[in-house]
Amino acid sequence: MLYRLPDDGDTKLRAICTECHLVHYENPLNVVGTVPHFGQRVLLCKRNIEPRKGKWTLPAGFMELGESTSEGAARETSEEAGAHFKMGSLFTVMSVPRVGQVHLYFLAELENEQFEPGFETLEARMFSESEIPWDDLAFRTVQETLKYYFADKKSGNFGVHTLNID
Amino acid sequence: MLYRLPDDGDTKLRAICTECHLVHYENPLNVVGTVPHFGQRVLLCKRNIEPRKGKWTLPAGFMELGESTSEGAARETSEEAGAHFKMGSLFTVMSVPRVGQVHLYFLAELENEQFEPGFETLEARMFSESEIPWDDLAFRTVQETLKYYFADKKSGNFGVHTLNID
Repeated sequence: MLYRLPDDGDTKLRAICTECHLVHYENPLNVVGTVPHFGQRVLLCKRNIEPRKGKWTLPAGFMELGESTSEGAARETSEEAGAHFKMGSLFTVMSVPRVGQVHLYFLAELENEQFEPGFETLEARMFSESEIPWDDLAFRTVQETLKYYFADKKSGNFGVHTLNID
Repeated sequence: MLYRLPDDGDTKLRAICTECHLVHYENPLNVVGTVPHFGQRVLLCKRNIEPRKGKWTLPAGFMELGESTSEGAARETSEEAGAHFKMGSLFTVMSVPRVGQVHLYFLAELENEQFEPGFETLEARMFSESEIPWDDLAFRTVQETLKYYFADKKSGNFGVHTLNID
């Protein structure tokens, strides 16, 4: 791979394979997930994979081809927590340009508190606001989404929140 | 390029270069743009590039690394229309899984009606709702975003709209 200008009038350097000459376009990736909630509590998963192994996260992962943002968020929630839930509305849209990502979280109403965590998750359990391990959350976008969630829960008015994280 | 399972426990087929063995992850791309508005009218650009050359679109394009969704939308609006505007809030988030894309549009308040279209644009001009060339719009997401815009304009209440387009 070598960075050079493609021959098609593009104005940005692109990674181009020195063997097969394919242009490897690099664009931001979407991370999609949910805020699974039940009563006054939300579901967090303890990560069993790097980065941030051992830290707590909302279920989320990279959006794949062939799915919508909401379908991807639901898939990750099933894979990581084995949760049973009803998908709700879009809740946060956060850009993280430093790592080339956009994180989108949806609300998800849990149908019960039985979970079957996948291999990426050490433990899945419910937390009330006062129990949230704020200092042991895996990602800043998880922290911000949880803060918005408990604030909106108090006001009784759930909106869509956007944020840019430097 | 050959599609096979990577050696890292991944469960999806990935495109892997037969020469350099790099895994070429293919994920959905974000298209970011704006609804540039002034009084009762919105700005549309006539496309000078394929696909849909000659059709009308809201200014939009692929989000690049190093920028937020909002910054990408502003960049595309400058590049394609040479417009002067103040960025507003997130307005539509639409998944188009058939083409592996997520389209995000922001509101943008024009400061005047002077435009300097770039090479991708044949013509940039303002349209009231009744003047919109509905049958000559380039993309379904442009159509849906314009419909939401004029509906919210009437109600005086601008929300964030999400939609999955098959």
